[in-house]
Amino acid sequence: MKRRVYKLLSVSKTTGDLSWYVDAFLVTLILLNVAAVILVSMEPIRVKFRMYFLLFEYFSIVVFTIEYLLRIWTANLNPRYQRPIIGNINYALTPLAIFDLLAVLPFFLPFFGMDLRLLRFLRVFRIFRLLKITRYLAALDLINRVIVKKKEEFVVSFILTGFLLIVASTFMYYVENNAQPDKFSSIPETMWWGVITLTSVGYGDVYPITPLGRLLGGIIAIIGIGLFALPAGIFAAGFSNEIAQVKQNSRTCPSCGQAIEKNSDQGSKPGIGRGTNYE
Amino acid sequence: MKRRVYKLLSVSKTTGDLSWYVDAFLVTLILLNVAAVILVSMEPIRVKFRMYFLLFEYFSIVVFTIEYLLRIWTANLNPRYQRPIIGNINYALTPLAIFDLLAVLPFFLPFFGMDLRLLRFLRVFRIFRLLKITRYLAALDLINRVIVKKKEEFVVSFILTGFLLIVASTFMYYVENNAQPDKFSSIPETMWWGVITLTSVGYGDVYPITPLGRLLGGIIAIIGIGLFALPAGIFAAGFSNEIAQVKQNSRTCPSCGQAIEKNSDQGSKPGIGRGTNYE
Amino acid sequence: MKRRVYKLLSVSKTTGDLSWYVDAFLVTLILLNVAAVILVSMEPIRVKFRMYFLLFEYFSIVVFTIEYLLRIWTANLNPRYQRPIIGNINYALTPLAIFDLLAVLPFFLPFFGMDLRLLRFLRVFRIFRLLKITRYLAALDLINRVIVKKKEEFVVSFILTGFLLIVASTFMYYVENNAQPDKFSSIPETMWWGVITLTSVGYGDVYPITPLGRLLGGIIAIIGIGLFALPAGIFAAGFSNEIAQVKQNSRTCPSCGQAIEKNSDQGSKPGIGRGTNYE
Amino acid sequence: MKRRVYKLLSVSKTTGDLSWYVDAFLVTLILLNVAAVILVSMEPIRVKFRMYFLLFEYFSIVVFTIEYLLRIWTANLNPRYQRPIIGNINYALTPLAIFDLLAVLPFFLPFFGMDLRLLRFLRVFRIFRLLKITRYLAALDLINRVIVKKKEEFVVSFILTGFLLIVASTFMYYVENNAQPDKFSSIPETMWWGVITLTSVGYGDVYPITPLGRLLGGIIAIIGIGLFALPAGIFAAGFSNEIAQVKQNSRTCPSCGQAIEKNSDQGSKPGIGRGTNYE
Repeated sequence: MKRRVYKLLSVSKTTGDLSWYVDAFLVTLILLNVAAVILVSMEPIRVKFRMYFLLFEYFSIVVFTIEYLLRIWTANLNPRYQRPIIGNINYALTPLAIFDLLAVLPFFLPFFGMDLRLLRFLRVFRIFRLLKITRYLAALDLINRVIVKKKEEFVVSFILTGFLLIVASTFMYYVENNAQPDKFSSIPETMWWGVITLTSVGYGDVYPITPLGRLLGGIIAIIGIGLFALPAGIFAAGFSNEIAQVKQNSRTCPSCGQAIEKNSDQGSKPGIGRGTNYE
Repeated sequence: MKRRVYKLLSVSKTTGDLSWYVDAFLVTLILLNVAAVILVSMEPIRVKFRMYFLLFEYFSIVVFTIEYLLRIWTANLNPRYQRPIIGNINYALTPLAIFDLLAVLPFFLPFFGMDLRLLRFLRVFRIFRLLKITRYLAALDLINRVIVKKKEEFVVSFILTGFLLIVASTFMYYVENNAQPDKFSSIPETMWWGVITLTSVGYGDVYPITPLGRLLGGIIAIIGIGLFALPAGIFAAGFSNEIAQVKQNSRTCPSCGQAIEKNSDQGSKPGIGRGTNYE
Repeated sequence: MKRRVYKLLSVSKTTGDLSWYVDAFLVTLILLNVAAVILVSMEPIRVKFRMYFLLFEYFSIVVFTIEYLLRIWTANLNPRYQRPIIGNINYALTPLAIFDLLAVLPFFLPFFGMDLRLLRFLRVFRIFRLLKITRYLAALDLINRVIVKKKEEFVVSFILTGFLLIVASTFMYYVENNAQPDKFSSIPETMWWGVITLTSVGYGDVYPITPLGRLLGGIIAIIGIGLFALPAGIFAAGFSNEIAQVKQNSRTCPSCGQAIEKNSDQGSKPGIGRGTNYE
Repeated sequence: MKRRVYKLLSVSKTTGDLSWYVDAFLVTLILLNVAAVILVSMEPIRVKFRMYFLLFEYFSIVVFTIEYLLRIWTANLNPRYQRPIIGNINYALTPLAIFDLLAVLPFFLPFFGMDLRLLRFLRVFRIFRLLKITRYLAALDLINRVIVKKKEEFVVSFILTGFLLIVASTFMYYVENNAQPDKFSSIPETMWWGVITLTSVGYGDVYPITPLGRLLGGIIAIIGIGLFALPAGIFAAGFSNEIAQVKQNSRTCPSCGQAIEKNSDQGSKPGIGRGTNYE
């Protein structure tokens, strides 16, 4: 019985069996919840269909709560969380399980006597119903693999962007603070300017007006945009690579089209895969 | 006779024959229509040359209508639409044939008793006269081939951008709604902020003002711009590849310059071609 | 004598000979002219040093005029412009010679009775003194080579960007014209919005405000920025390639590091060079 | 004794020895100083904890001064600065030593009778306490190596961007000066527009309004953004390459996965390393 529930809840690999229908039902419910969150945010729709949204909310809470409890209960059938109670707790601390919990928790808090004002804030947590979909979205798994493979690159480039952001914002704060004390009022405030400039978004709500500030801002923009484009470039290269490996079945050298003999599948060898990162 | 018309209307491969002149005439007429649409949109020109534009409009409608009817009539000479009437209907449902129809349709609707206010809106359809040029523009065919070859990449990256857009906008809506209820009034409204920020356009009409909103906005900008640059990067790599294949006649390995023996033309082998996607 | 002048004026390949000093003198004079153009544009400096700028202007005009006349006179010593008078005229029509002419022409026009108001406009032509430096700037020659090698890519991508710009602006004009008749007043006017959005500059002076306009604008931004990044990407790849060829002397395969035997220098073989465009 | 101090101050390679603890202490102190600089910039925090910040400031000054003096004193134990006094002076002129000096100097200037107004400006120098961290941050060393390896590319691309910036700004100044004499008041002023447009930041504080200015601005945006993206692209490629070399231990051809025999380590051969710059 417990094993059967576990099988039903885990992501199905064959289309059309019962577990697949459970997946399809849960994915549909998640997507409908996302749609509901978006629709409820629109005043006229919220007012007009308040009743229906409430009923749907109760229904979702019930389903997601049952799902959550069953997942926790059956967790120790997963070899990774084998030990009776410690395994269940360990599973409950994985990101996916936390998303599942946060998706239903706000509903139950009033029973424990929570302040109503805080509760209004907790509707934010509905967004975790969207994040529940990560379990079923292979594309997000792909992102995960890219991040793992390119960990060093990401760490280095985030250190560099953080360093540049602090240096640029500190300099700019000292230069522009006198001229615009309201906009460059502190270094953390100036970092808003820094991020928006270095990502080249440039809303135009904050910008230097002194000649020195403009000179500094121009230099920062030219140099810094290159640094801030690093994580994006690393991610793009890794992503392109991951997909290429998924698609690649042929055993021909990508350069010269000649068959490569006695070489195990490229896709399964991360070392070689990494070697073809020609970006 | 029917076969002759078919040959005349299809895109000519040899410069200077009659079919080529028909192409040239139609392309010229399309380009003049585009010019007319642009010029008519300018108030002073529209007022001054109203008569000439009207005459040109009538002339274009006549030519494009005849062209459309002839194309439909001769469609079943194309092996793909061989069956007598079903073939013609199938052809009429291809994008190119629909563009041809929409390019002339608005003119004939008044005869069927359409509302005048709706008709004014239908002038939008004139833009389909511009889209008629796709038939003759090889560059657009190239885009098409890139999209087909990189289908998986595009699907995955659009799912990711869509997912990120929804998550980012939902979070931002909850965070900024209180401070700016007019600008972050609903999640769909906030998505406008999301798209403009994540594409790094940053008009500056909507931006977060609360500290938490700015922190969230900054993180979204840094991470998200990388994701939103994915489709662009995939397209650029595929485009560069397609053109390289068109240009490549030599049989040398692009890596080491050695001749590759007994290997059929690389350009004609999409599998290998895809293998050289070093991006 | 004529041959000697020709040698002196052409770009020297050996440091320290007389021709090199002529080059150095001319380059210095050009750079000083650029500095003068920039400084004169600043009101307080222009007023204070009017006399010095005028003297420097006369001196530059004299030198550049003599330089121009000598270049035209000696042009037919260049094998490409060998024929006595036709060669000289042909040389005078090359971009470099036209830059040389436009750099001095405005000064002489008053002698032919030009309107003073037009003359004030002609100060724009001083910028051609800056463009004279192209003769000596190897980096600009490199750009030229990249453009020649990647001609097809540039032509195709500029056709695509032009096509997208027209389609996007026409749609947006029809959608937003009613809501913002002053900003989206005509299709050419809307193209300003189009360029600033598709290049992701996003000044924020023009943006859609209707829901349909924002939906359309968002889609255009996501798709279009990829297309508009094409020329930049092509140029970057070609540029990187050109420099790599200049630097590359080794005869090893860039992929596997093994020496390539019996293969002439890669750098001198544009065909192979083009083959290594892995971008 | 002197040798021992030298060893303690130089960056430790083994975790856990005394020199490592000295490094850890100094890095912590630098990071706390950075935090202090950021926190002090926020009015309420500065007012409330003035005393603590002052005490921490005195403590930091003492430590950093002792550190600086010891580094200068022991500099000639470094083989590069071997000669008794000249070596010490040479070391004192390296960027790292100058950062160390500037990080403490402002504190001591009042003793030499400096104007108080200038002193307030000197708090900018506190930022050099952040720059002291470069000694310990391997990621910054990586940037350095990338810049050295790609020197030619950077020089050429910076010349091109500078050239384009001057030409674009000069043209724009002449075109827009009449219509917006306050915003395009001089060429240096117009360069602010140029940088912000060409980096695609686009704050929206300055933009052309005349039809000719918009046409010119649009062309500059399309062409120029490609050029301004060059340094970023070069840096990204070089960065990606450097990291790949650090990670790469395997001796397989990245193209075809076959082992490469009798070939010394790729990473240590800059020539080959450069050859794999497929960007």
